[in-house]
Amino acid sequence: MRFSEFALTTLKEVPAEAEIVSHKLMLRAGLIRRLSSGLFTWMPLGLRVLRIVESVVREEMDRAGALELLMPTVQPAELWQESGRWEQYGPLLLRMQDRHDREYCFGPTHEEVITDVARRELRSYKQLPVNYYQIQTKFRDEIRPRFGVMRSREFIMKDAYSFDLDQEGLQQSYDRMHAAYTAIFKRLGLKFRVVDADSGEIGGSRSQEFHVLADSGEDAIAYCDADHYASNIETAATFPSAGERSAATQELEKFATPGVKAISDLCAMLDITPAQTVKTLIVDGTDGPVALILRGDHELNAVKAQKLEGVASPLTMADTGTIIKALGAEPGSLGPVGMALPTYVDHAVASMADFSCGANENGYHYKGVNFGRDLPDPETFDLRNVVTGDPTPGGTGTLSIARGIEVGHIFQLGSKYSEAMKATVQAPDGTNRVMEMGCYGIGITRIVGAAIEQNHDDNGIIWPGPLAPFNVVIVPINMHRSDEVREASEALYAELTDAGLEVLLDDRDARPGVKFADAELIGIPHRVVIGDRGLSKGEFEYRHRRDTESRDLKREEVLKLLKDLPIS
Amino acid sequence: MRFSEFALTTLKEVPAEAEIVSHKLMLRAGLIRRLSSGLFTWMPLGLRVLRIVESVVREEMDRAGALELLMPTVQPAELWQESGRWEQYGPLLLRMQDRHDREYCFGPTHEEVITDVARRELRSYKQLPVNYYQIQTKFRDEIRPRFGVMRSREFIMKDAYSFDLDQEGLQQSYDRMHAAYTAIFKRLGLKFRVVDADSGEIGGSRSQEFHVLADSGEDAIAYCDADHYASNIETAATFPSAGERSAATQELEKFATPGVKAISDLCAMLDITPAQTVKTLIVDGTDGPVALILRGDHELNAVKAQKLEGVASPLTMADTGTIIKALGAEPGSLGPVGMALPTYVDHAVASMADFSCGANENGYHYKGVNFGRDLPDPETFDLRNVVTGDPTPGGTGTLSIARGIEVGHIFQLGSKYSEAMKATVQAPDGTNRVMEMGCYGIGITRIVGAAIEQNHDDNGIIWPGPLAPFNVVIVPINMHRSDEVREASEALYAELTDAGLEVLLDDRDARPGVKFADAELIGIPHRVVIGDRGLSKGEFEYRHRRDTESRDLKREEVLKLLKDLPIS
Repeated sequence: MRFSEFALTTLKEVPAEAEIVSHKLMLRAGLIRRLSSGLFTWMPLGLRVLRIVESVVREEMDRAGALELLMPTVQPAELWQESGRWEQYGPLLLRMQDRHDREYCFGPTHEEVITDVARRELRSYKQLPVNYYQIQTKFRDEIRPRFGVMRSREFIMKDAYSFDLDQEGLQQSYDRMHAAYTAIFKRLGLKFRVVDADSGEIGGSRSQEFHVLADSGEDAIAYCDADHYASNIETAATFPSAGERSAATQELEKFATPGVKAISDLCAMLDITPAQTVKTLIVDGTDGPVALILRGDHELNAVKAQKLEGVASPLTMADTGTIIKALGAEPGSLGPVGMALPTYVDHAVASMADFSCGANENGYHYKGVNFGRDLPDPETFDLRNVVTGDPTPGGTGTLSIARGIEVGHIFQLGSKYSEAMKATVQAPDGTNRVMEMGCYGIGITRIVGAAIEQNHDDNGIIWPGPLAPFNVVIVPINMHRSDEVREASEALYAELTDAGLEVLLDDRDARPGVKFADAELIGIPHRVVIGDRGLSKGEFEYRHRRDTESRDLKREEVLKLLKDLPIS
Repeated sequence: MRFSEFALTTLKEVPAEAEIVSHKLMLRAGLIRRLSSGLFTWMPLGLRVLRIVESVVREEMDRAGALELLMPTVQPAELWQESGRWEQYGPLLLRMQDRHDREYCFGPTHEEVITDVARRELRSYKQLPVNYYQIQTKFRDEIRPRFGVMRSREFIMKDAYSFDLDQEGLQQSYDRMHAAYTAIFKRLGLKFRVVDADSGEIGGSRSQEFHVLADSGEDAIAYCDADHYASNIETAATFPSAGERSAATQELEKFATPGVKAISDLCAMLDITPAQTVKTLIVDGTDGPVALILRGDHELNAVKAQKLEGVASPLTMADTGTIIKALGAEPGSLGPVGMALPTYVDHAVASMADFSCGANENGYHYKGVNFGRDLPDPETFDLRNVVTGDPTPGGTGTLSIARGIEVGHIFQLGSKYSEAMKATVQAPDGTNRVMEMGCYGIGITRIVGAAIEQNHDDNGIIWPGPLAPFNVVIVPINMHRSDEVREASEALYAELTDAGLEVLLDDRDARPGVKFADAELIGIPHRVVIGDRGLSKGEFEYRHRRDTESRDLKREEVLKLLKDLPIS
């Protein structure tokens, strides 16, 4: 492609609306243009990247035996009423009426439509397993669209839906998708982790998320590469400490703490760290309030806590009146010593010695508290979010915490939709059986933003090789005044293009600085500068986007280097 | 692809909703499934055909230098208000409100959005010409969706929009698209004609339609292959007759015609054909009523007539009161002899002799009317639709009439949108100039239906080679009982697949008759039957979908024949 025929406009200024780096760079590099809130046009440069993502996804889905189809974006309300989601989905669902006042929505997802297709199309277990997928435009009417294509309203997803006769079949379909997704993100050249996740509102049992790692990610991931383990920090489990507890070195002491309401107040008064304190949270139980005991620096995990017997779900903090009535003290002065309520102690607390906590008396705390002396050794539970250094489930490694951007999600839906919509097939025994479903999503447009969040510097985007809209940019210096430069540039352009590379020839009559800045901004991996000075020595100037220095290479060396590139 | 893994369900019954053959066959062959009125899911088999169409269109658009982008399907009302179409477009436009009650539509076309993109992106004539295109989902809320994908509500279009500095540039961009479209429809293996067309509601000047020929087509096309001429019959011109008029052989006679109101009544009474009569139509003029004189069997063309000086536009028939007041007679008894109103005579009428017409007196007609004797020789005009046998504009050929399905349309929009939306660039002289636009559409989904309308028989679809979802179907006979058949079938499947062919292996445990019927229904061009009997002689049974008989061919002959296929 010649720059002069590509109509690319790059921007020096960062548009005010853009909050995160990928949004800024996508606008500046001319990948996208904003049409309206949460609506973007994919310009030719951006679409090239999007098409690469699509084609890699399509190839791996096909390889995994999935069948591509294409469902309408506009979906009739009746199907959503059948599944019960017409009422549940809320204002994220863009609803509309046609000229006959019939109700429709712009599909944010396609479980209902595919289940309708499957219940008509699939009649016998002999047709199973089937995994239908599509790459299609979706719409979610976000209350506050932001971050460019990372949380736009209109976006493109690859969504797949598997149908099996039983749970065993579903597990196999799910495993195939796990493998396909892993292959996809590897091929795209992205650093990612597969994390265990709660399935959230879609329902069903097992689910995992694929996260592209990036400091700006919205989600925190606990992982241990040695153990091949990764999990959303909300779902990662904690375990009883393996080591011995330190012996008590301090006497138990009760002391006045006027004005101390929070852990930070207590630490300031005693010159200790939050890890030397214990906090006590009172929550509603099924039979009166319940106390949860955590280390002062740890964070309660509501999902874990509400699964405990006797604890109300969803987890609800007890109100102050209830607490005072039950304990005679206000929140801020509570503690496990002499606790009158049913108590759940977090694993990590059991290994503490000489700690501080509230005394269950307003304005008083204890210090030098020790289990087995001041209060009984507790049974312990998993009540909190993991932190860096926690052991992995395997027990041989320790967790690190990273941030990630969710770009893929695989679910075992089970029979949630097939049951509600009566999607059955004839089983081998002749009976009709409700199919087991899985669903598998990839945020096609989101991947482009996530890739940039992971790969950029101050000068612009640094595309991973497989995602680059062009493999090579040729920058001629004074092409419009030097015949030698023009001829050498055109010859290299033709030769690399013939070799199957995507080449951008910057044939603009512009200053070299402008061309260099644009090449860095749009992030093309390989840059070849051709000028009279180098040509006189038979040399081109080569630089990789991640390099800090250019290298003078003979024409043959450049050709060999570029032609040997792995083309995805 | 193995049939057993393709989850294809074909139907014996013709669904009641389907009126035309392509709709019936697409449902029966499992290409599409209906979701709701005018909404279809493209099943895996149908999507294969759709993707072929898309890729051919994309390749030819790229080759023509057009730049692919992707605009949102959801468009803000503000842009449509700017162009004036928010009010004009009517109920075809699917409108919606988001959660903040802002108004949007589901784009039926993208002139407004692309003009908004262009006015921000294009600043200088140096960036021109630019031709942006996309392949995108559209929605038109048809009052009566029908004919399957031929007039669905949600559909896929390739729409392109060119931007030029002046009319000369626009003409070049238009010519490039004309050539690209011609290449596309040739590559798809379709019989088509390019017809001159009125640009209709989109506005602008020059426009042509690409029609796939099919007897079921909605549009009538006048064409002459010898003269490379084709036109919508509404826009094809007629010309003064080149030959001499016959001499008068009858006397002028006025006679009573009680009850004669129509040409057919007059013909029945006199035992003549409508071509021997003249009809007189009174229409509103700018300065009182005007008479239009046509041969009795010809059809008035309103678009042509309303362009005549003194005739009101849009063309309006005069009411009976006006006619009686002006002529003293009712419609049904009118004629050119002694006509008191300004009169336009159609070219074809001037070459008539001894004709019959009304006498401008209720219940009376003339016969034996002749120009130059009973009324003066007229100046003549083009007032009517062409008919079979009319001369071409070149004058060397005669017109045939065929029916076509519009699948492509190219327009010169001029400055209609760029003016309204202020899309300007800096011209070489430093002034800002409104860009000249062209727009170019191809109905991607519609092409699939049109191809079937053109190519089918009683047994099903007959795909043109380039459009076939599979090139070859292998039908093993008794594969599940004969190891030889299985091995030979698998070997051929592997070898043809490796050669780059798309092969469907019908590995179902089903009767041969079922497999043959499905292969014909879904229209795969090449069929190879493998059975024990043939194998014992080292032969396969080969048949092209258009053949009536099978041929026994040696394995090597089959391989050579199939490997030599041109793969698009």
